[in-house]
Amino acid sequence: MKLVVSLAVCLISAGSVFASSSLIQKAKNSRLEAIPATQEALMKLIDDKNDPITKEKVELGKKLYFDPRMSKSGLISCNTCHNLGLGGADGIPAAIGHGWTANPHHLNSPTVYNSVFFKAQFWDGRSPHLADQAQGPVQAGPEMAAPPKLVEDRINSIAEYVQEFKGAYGDDVKIDFEKITATIATFEKTLVTPSKFDDFLNGDENALNKEEKEGLVTFIDKGCTSCHSGIALGGTMQPFQIAAKYKFTNVGDFKGDENGMVKTPTLRNITETAPYFHNGQIWSLSEAVKEMGSTQLGIKIDDNDAAKIVTFLKALKGDKPEIIYPQLPESSINTPKPSAN
Amino acid sequence: MKLVVSLAVCLISAGSVFASSSLIQKAKNSRLEAIPATQEALMKLIDDKNDPITKEKVELGKKLYFDPRMSKSGLISCNTCHNLGLGGADGIPAAIGHGWTANPHHLNSPTVYNSVFFKAQFWDGRSPHLADQAQGPVQAGPEMAAPPKLVEDRINSIAEYVQEFKGAYGDDVKIDFEKITATIATFEKTLVTPSKFDDFLNGDENALNKEEKEGLVTFIDKGCTSCHSGIALGGTMQPFQIAAKYKFTNVGDFKGDENGMVKTPTLRNITETAPYFHNGQIWSLSEAVKEMGSTQLGIKIDDNDAAKIVTFLKALKGDKPEIIYPQLPESSINTPKPSAN
Repeated sequence: MKLVVSLAVCLISAGSVFASSSLIQKAKNSRLEAIPATQEALMKLIDDKNDPITKEKVELGKKLYFDPRMSKSGLISCNTCHNLGLGGADGIPAAIGHGWTANPHHLNSPTVYNSVFFKAQFWDGRSPHLADQAQGPVQAGPEMAAPPKLVEDRINSIAEYVQEFKGAYGDDVKIDFEKITATIATFEKTLVTPSKFDDFLNGDENALNKEEKEGLVTFIDKGCTSCHSGIALGGTMQPFQIAAKYKFTNVGDFKGDENGMVKTPTLRNITETAPYFHNGQIWSLSEAVKEMGSTQLGIKIDDNDAAKIVTFLKALKGDKPEIIYPQLPESSINTPKPSAN
Repeated sequence: MKLVVSLAVCLISAGSVFASSSLIQKAKNSRLEAIPATQEALMKLIDDKNDPITKEKVELGKKLYFDPRMSKSGLISCNTCHNLGLGGADGIPAAIGHGWTANPHHLNSPTVYNSVFFKAQFWDGRSPHLADQAQGPVQAGPEMAAPPKLVEDRINSIAEYVQEFKGAYGDDVKIDFEKITATIATFEKTLVTPSKFDDFLNGDENALNKEEKEGLVTFIDKGCTSCHSGIALGGTMQPFQIAAKYKFTNVGDFKGDENGMVKTPTLRNITETAPYFHNGQIWSLSEAVKEMGSTQLGIKIDDNDAAKIVTFLKALKGDKPEIIYPQLPESSINTPKPSAN
């Protein structure tokens, strides 16, 4: 009898620790959530009845997102630091912007993909949503360095843009800085990347293979979901142990919000967005996993468990929306000129 | 009888100076050429039997064209200065590259669209073709600042790129700097933008309206085709009167090739690629037309004629190939790191 039980345990271990259906339940109990499987359910989640997502706004927002004339120099677009071909980020440790200036706090550019699911924007969470967030980098001296009036004058001087704003919002639209950046945010809301992990959570028990399921179990059991939860597996403010013991404290002086809280990065598409952490000082994903174990969770995650977790994280790589590179409307003779200084 | 003749002349003037069919002939006699109307004829013109254009090479070349990891900093791609959404150029007077360095000769970034039709590349014509040209900016310190070995090490460290090179060239491909830049050039060859002017030259007499035809006549009669001819309406080396009398000589120290010859810019999509001239010092297209009249042709082109010519130039705006923004392959842990310095 004893032998039979051991054998049964062995077989279960060789398969997966949980039957898939109970693993789905375990993941949900750990506050992991799927991107909704249907467009209707997704829209219910991300749409704003006061500023509904429409095809016209998304197309216009896409143009503005890719348009370097949103910056003082005429060289830097949203896509420069949040590159939709590079996992929605820039692949460098600290953002570099206008005048080749590095971010003064040595902060790493977070991905724009799935940022609609974040509860707060920016590393210190100071923005409640994307429309508010989009106003920041455009104006910031070390980023795009464009005062609101310059952006408004540029866009209003370009006839085709004016027409498209009217098409999106009606003929009496006031094309001001808030409207322009809100339109970019509407485009950004559509940058959602469903993965096989979502298929799994949505009920397809075979969407993850055995190793990925083991990785998911390890991810949960080690406590990673205490911060990396929700649809984004991140995007909420958490007490990041940076000031006390984080070994990269000497790179940059970033401290989080007034309570020392820091926005947890999303883990979706994480294999595409090295280097990691707020100051981009770690390039290896397994090293990052082990570092979070010791720094945040106070446990040692060994190489074996780190590899399992990385296997799960790879399953978070999602399908990117197809983006047709936009043809941007021509400047006019009245368009304020770019300035590199 | 005299009255009748005058009336007839009047009517002809009010319509167009030439019957369309003879205007097509006049344009061809002035060495203006159409982009071929069929894909077959176009391929015959641009394809290279030693390195044939294939779907695999074009797709791979597109990724490399958009990949900022082609630069030392990881921030600058070919598309930064030759932006396919901005007429294939950057919209600023002098190119700015690595370290926010302006082009040392204050040279303006020329468009990549239709550059396959140029007889020489670079303002001083020092490159005979695109594959040779593409090697320059990648390495140039004030542009992408990436030594060939860095580029080779980066691309060879990215498994998906290696696979795609094998798919494009065969399993024994050597992925060296020449192969990488030649692949970019193969993509660039496809950046051809047929316009209604081509439809006209190819026999559709109604493709240009009356004003555009008048503009074409003025363009030819004023002598613009003495330099702006061929398919590109430019792209050949011509004696540019810069040193002697060009009023912008004090901006930059560019002198052309050893004979003082300068590559004539293409006029295709010219409304999208302000500012104009080698040093980007003129923003108004009609001003540029008048300047060329006095500087190059030794004639005064008045406002009226300049406006006519500009009307014709607008008809050179072509249809851009649809570009699906590429998802770039992930770096590996062995990929040489970006460096902003």
